[in-house]
Amino acid sequence: MKRVLNFYPGPAALPVEVLEEARDEMLDWNNTGMSVMEISHRSKEYEEIHNGTQELLKKLFNMPDNFKVLLLQGGASLQFAMVPMNLLKEGETADYIVTGRFSNNAYKNAKKIANVNLAASTEEDGKYFRIPKLEEIKVSKEARYVHLTSNNTIFGTQWKSFPDYSPVPLVADMSSDILSRKIDFKPFGLIYAGAQKNLGPAGVTVVIIREDLIENSRDDLPDMLSYKTLAGKNSLFNTPSCFGIYMMHKVLKWVDSKGGLDFIEKQNEEKANIIYGLIDKYPEFFVSKVEKESRSYMNVSFRLPDEELEKKFLEEAQNNGIIGLKGHRSVGGIRISMYNANGVKEVKILAEFMEDFYKKNG
Amino acid sequence: MKRVLNFYPGPAALPVEVLEEARDEMLDWNNTGMSVMEISHRSKEYEEIHNGTQELLKKLFNMPDNFKVLLLQGGASLQFAMVPMNLLKEGETADYIVTGRFSNNAYKNAKKIANVNLAASTEEDGKYFRIPKLEEIKVSKEARYVHLTSNNTIFGTQWKSFPDYSPVPLVADMSSDILSRKIDFKPFGLIYAGAQKNLGPAGVTVVIIREDLIENSRDDLPDMLSYKTLAGKNSLFNTPSCFGIYMMHKVLKWVDSKGGLDFIEKQNEEKANIIYGLIDKYPEFFVSKVEKESRSYMNVSFRLPDEELEKKFLEEAQNNGIIGLKGHRSVGGIRISMYNANGVKEVKILAEFMEDFYKKNG
Repeated sequence: MKRVLNFYPGPAALPVEVLEEARDEMLDWNNTGMSVMEISHRSKEYEEIHNGTQELLKKLFNMPDNFKVLLLQGGASLQFAMVPMNLLKEGETADYIVTGRFSNNAYKNAKKIANVNLAASTEEDGKYFRIPKLEEIKVSKEARYVHLTSNNTIFGTQWKSFPDYSPVPLVADMSSDILSRKIDFKPFGLIYAGAQKNLGPAGVTVVIIREDLIENSRDDLPDMLSYKTLAGKNSLFNTPSCFGIYMMHKVLKWVDSKGGLDFIEKQNEEKANIIYGLIDKYPEFFVSKVEKESRSYMNVSFRLPDEELEKKFLEEAQNNGIIGLKGHRSVGGIRISMYNANGVKEVKILAEFMEDFYKKNG
Repeated sequence: MKRVLNFYPGPAALPVEVLEEARDEMLDWNNTGMSVMEISHRSKEYEEIHNGTQELLKKLFNMPDNFKVLLLQGGASLQFAMVPMNLLKEGETADYIVTGRFSNNAYKNAKKIANVNLAASTEEDGKYFRIPKLEEIKVSKEARYVHLTSNNTIFGTQWKSFPDYSPVPLVADMSSDILSRKIDFKPFGLIYAGAQKNLGPAGVTVVIIREDLIENSRDDLPDMLSYKTLAGKNSLFNTPSCFGIYMMHKVLKWVDSKGGLDFIEKQNEEKANIIYGLIDKYPEFFVSKVEKESRSYMNVSFRLPDEELEKKFLEEAQNNGIIGLKGHRSVGGIRISMYNANGVKEVKILAEFMEDFYKKNG
């Protein structure tokens, strides 16, 4: 068995220690004589995983007490609908900042539900290579919340700091950079994320929500679309994605054991410096259109001088056991997704391959 | 390692062969050098699992060509909302047959979305011990569909045959008996099921829907709540619950290798005959209130003469490595959930324990 170096944008690499544990426990978890997949979600055994996951997320983020963690399904895309359904009452409105494909989807879905405003967009010819400056963002007076996407997986941009419109809360889709750095919760009312980048396997959606937003949310919604119902039942209104939550619990314990978000944040800075260092060293070979201040530490998107070279790059990478580097079809080229499970060591191997490729082809 | 005999109502026992395969592939699936959890849902490798799962379901059910299989998230409970949202246009209505807790939830959720009718209910003092007779069901003229729940996990009742209101389609929640028997699709327009009983682990929801219902469904819904969008993207609008689908694929292959639904249906009849045989032999010890014609082949719910005995029964079962037998809190007593992964052999061991317990305590 040979493991590859995996830079897929998500689902993505998981820590090998976590996979080994899951393998060893597959037929007999915690001396129950069952897989964790075979155990009732109402059992004490599962409850420990469920509550433990919430508590560990709170601990790792040093989360204020007035935030609740929900463990849901449907991905960030279902939150595109649930956020406005829950937080906006008849006639109320919210503002959206569009910096990429997913934030645009969030905006378009919200428009199906309410009359929302576009506070800013950095779109140029269908592409998004930067985060807006504060003064570009026109938040409307009546906005009940301001929505943004913290990291744009496709184009490789990331908010380095967040605006604060208090008392109007920020709502953020953090799918592709949650758990990659510390968060100051002050400006936020709600944070959501699909798990399949830094948190665990696909199939779990984390919603971190301030309690007053739950209390003031609509109460005429179907059960599975209602934060009030889901929070009231501790995300156990129906059967949750138990195995996904179990894996996430292990990933969180792994992060904790490494030194928590202090360690992770530093590691991600170091990884980003290595890759962007190469881009800045050979800017005419590794061609990035992303504005420097907007560079994502999670996803690095760039082109090579021509498509033939890009094809060759991907092929040679694969021959070297490095996979998942193909850029999204809407931008082409190369994309490096370096979530937490890939450490400095793995990124250095990739950087070495890149520099070597430059020297042979540049 | 000692595996237990697991009669949990769901999440429930999985075939041990399936778990062993998943264990062996955990760090290197299909020579990819990755876990299946680490692979992009847009990769060719994952596509084979995704499409293979849909095709195998079609094959096992001998499904008519005009049905599509969707692989979604959120459980049956999210379908309680999505069915009326998608199938009912402004002012349209549907009929609901209520035979238990979950069908009542389906009805209550639909009422939040549309003005729906109660076509029949077998509720008596908050309990449901039977399926209605055909003549009790009053389907309204204007109904766009008739909703029922094929098997009631909590009380242990099951539709043995289905009414046909064509051209008005049946919509059925089959969460707890899908894949337990063959289905004649003629009366059905839509069948949905959470995976965590006979199909695989929790976190996947199967929706089997007739194409004309997709075409005529509403097109102003948010993406993740729209059958049209989800079907149009082959359930890949966003990242699906990949690992759950991978496990389900393995379970379907296991069913296929055993002889498909011919084998499964016979096995489930035989299992039911063993347990109901005991109930009929000692009716004053294993006390079932379920009407004979309505008996579920999946979940058998009964009481013992007193609660002390019930407690003793559960304790001794556990000491014998038999777990998951506690009745739902709303009915108390004992519940045996015997999904496909428990064969005749396992049910015979349980029956032996039951008869032995009767002889010592009856």
